[in-house]
Amino acid sequence: MDEIEPYIVRPIGIVRSTLTAPAEAPNQAFEGAPAAVLEIEPIYTDALHRIRVGDELILLTWLHLAHRDVLKTHPTGDTTIPLTGVFRTRSPDRPNPIGLHRVTVTALEGPTTLRVGALETIDGTPIIDLKIAMREAPEA
Amino acid sequence: MDEIEPYIVRPIGIVRSTLTAPAEAPNQAFEGAPAAVLEIEPIYTDALHRIRVGDELILLTWLHLAHRDVLKTHPTGDTTIPLTGVFRTRSPDRPNPIGLHRVTVTALEGPTTLRVGALETIDGTPIIDLKIAMREAPEA
Repeated sequence: MDEIEPYIVRPIGIVRSTLTAPAEAPNQAFEGAPAAVLEIEPIYTDALHRIRVGDELILLTWLHLAHRDVLKTHPTGDTTIPLTGVFRTRSPDRPNPIGLHRVTVTALEGPTTLRVGALETIDGTPIIDLKIAMREAPEA
Repeated sequence: MDEIEPYIVRPIGIVRSTLTAPAEAPNQAFEGAPAAVLEIEPIYTDALHRIRVGDELILLTWLHLAHRDVLKTHPTGDTTIPLTGVFRTRSPDRPNPIGLHRVTVTALEGPTTLRVGALETIDGTPIIDLKIAMREAPEA
């Protein structure tokens, strides 16, 4: 295999949420997560241009409390499910702990503050990317 | 805003594809991308445990040829579409150039080599994460 170099991820913002502990966070947004606020760094104002209320965005986070050395887990913490490689799960514990979330923009509160609907991520989670969601290709 | 520290992403593998130049790559897999191979580093063998043929996975890549200083772009390169913030596009050019792809596992070729269906990513692209796709929450 070619040598593969590491890369530096610089967070572009931070999640503000009433969820403050991982134990409070549901596994998925549709399991009853609260609304949240995305505070984006002002240097990225231009990268938010044309985002509007109603947009569906894919939010990528850095799950800063995750354990990067875990390679197998019981999915959803259910020990009746056999140990499974983390690359076949949605566990936050994984070598590069990137969280993937679909959110709807519900309000624009200033040039770099977006209010969004249900989000299963705790307060203070770093944001590393936003992308428009695509209906034609649900996950890509 | 809290101080947000940078993080190190260590690639977990590499894409092998007949696509060798970005100009050849379609914008999305459903636009005629070829099949590809995911070569995962052997140290992550356990993280692939229980992945099987037919699984749908979300593949995260590091788009190593992207320009990280681009904040606005014409979506899909179409100059008739107004300049748009990259966070409202799928452009590879963005502050943290993470690619998001949905793939289907078509064959297991050894403990850390997965053959997958259509993938719009060029040969040599670093892989940074794999997750199981979820039907209930198409993009998260």
